[in-house]
Amino acid sequence: MSDVDINERHKQKMQKQKKRVDARIKEATTERGVFVFLTGNGKGKSSSAFGMVLRALGYGQKVGVIQFIKGNRTTGESLFLSNLHPDVDHYQMGTGFTWDSQDRERDIAAAETTWEVASQMLSDDSYDLVILDELTYMLGYKYLDVEKVLDVIKNRPVEQSVVVTGRGGGARLRELADTVSEVKEIKHAFKSGIKARPGVDL
Amino acid sequence: MSDVDINERHKQKMQKQKKRVDARIKEATTERGVFVFLTGNGKGKSSSAFGMVLRALGYGQKVGVIQFIKGNRTTGESLFLSNLHPDVDHYQMGTGFTWDSQDRERDIAAAETTWEVASQMLSDDSYDLVILDELTYMLGYKYLDVEKVLDVIKNRPVEQSVVVTGRGGGARLRELADTVSEVKEIKHAFKSGIKARPGVDL
Repeated sequence: MSDVDINERHKQKMQKQKKRVDARIKEATTERGVFVFLTGNGKGKSSSAFGMVLRALGYGQKVGVIQFIKGNRTTGESLFLSNLHPDVDHYQMGTGFTWDSQDRERDIAAAETTWEVASQMLSDDSYDLVILDELTYMLGYKYLDVEKVLDVIKNRPVEQSVVVTGRGGGARLRELADTVSEVKEIKHAFKSGIKARPGVDL
Repeated sequence: MSDVDINERHKQKMQKQKKRVDARIKEATTERGVFVFLTGNGKGKSSSAFGMVLRALGYGQKVGVIQFIKGNRTTGESLFLSNLHPDVDHYQMGTGFTWDSQDRERDIAAAETTWEVASQMLSDDSYDLVILDELTYMLGYKYLDVEKVLDVIKNRPVEQSVVVTGRGGGARLRELADTVSEVKEIKHAFKSGIKARPGVDL
């Protein structure tokens, strides 16, 4: 096939593709906040949530970030939020990873306090975007009641978007979410002995 | 089982988990930049790359962002980078989605020019993190040669991390990458007729 043919065939293929994309954009007319759920065992769930924070900040939106699990290590997102964008409301559950604290009753109390802060954001229509980072673990350990949590998410202001991250999470969460991605680990640098990298993993 | 028993069993389980996590952290001792590849058909690949940009900015790192595909629409990441963080070097391939331009030769020329900019960043050790957003499509359409691209990524400065996003990408890319996640679409709001949302999808 000559170069001219290749270019012509490419053009026809792209015209068809453009038609498909344009038709789909035309069909999507409902305008409201969305509930995005990022789950699975691979890298990219929390990073993705923070990418949406970056996008929302680009539009000058009001953002709230709740982190349900936090290790003792410094993270880039914490440094970013506290030093560069203190305009983002940021709350971290105080107890660290649950395998660090090893104290179930203390964890439950901390989860409940954190959920109170989240609930307030989820009922305040001045927030355009609310991130509930690693929320699923609170449900998995039954520190928080899934029906109570879903009820608050469901009844949030109509223009507000919410992002939940974490492994697991269960069928009820998937059901309610508008967009669900499962991030599958194909491989991870950590497992080849490479230390977690500031600016990438931390 | 009484509450006391539940709490004690939880404590034992968490102690075991802590041992496992600590051992794995101890084993991961290699310190170098990583190559992260985010692929699959679900939402969260580019968002995740921009989440890493946010983290890197938190550490005051130098970041370069190359976007190989760009539609005509405004995006939050563009607004963020140009208005709030002009310290990030940001380059967008000028032709828009390839199904918008429909001109293969023009696309190839644009891809090559864009790759030149990327190559310069990937040979400059002052960059801590380089994002190659939607690079895979340039490989899929054979606008860029995969071996040439992999060679530059492979020979980048040892402390530099690089993130490639996009569907497909092929086996050679997966092979070279340190961390590979496949983002699987379980569902997407767009397909239920909900318009792409600024601060989430755009």
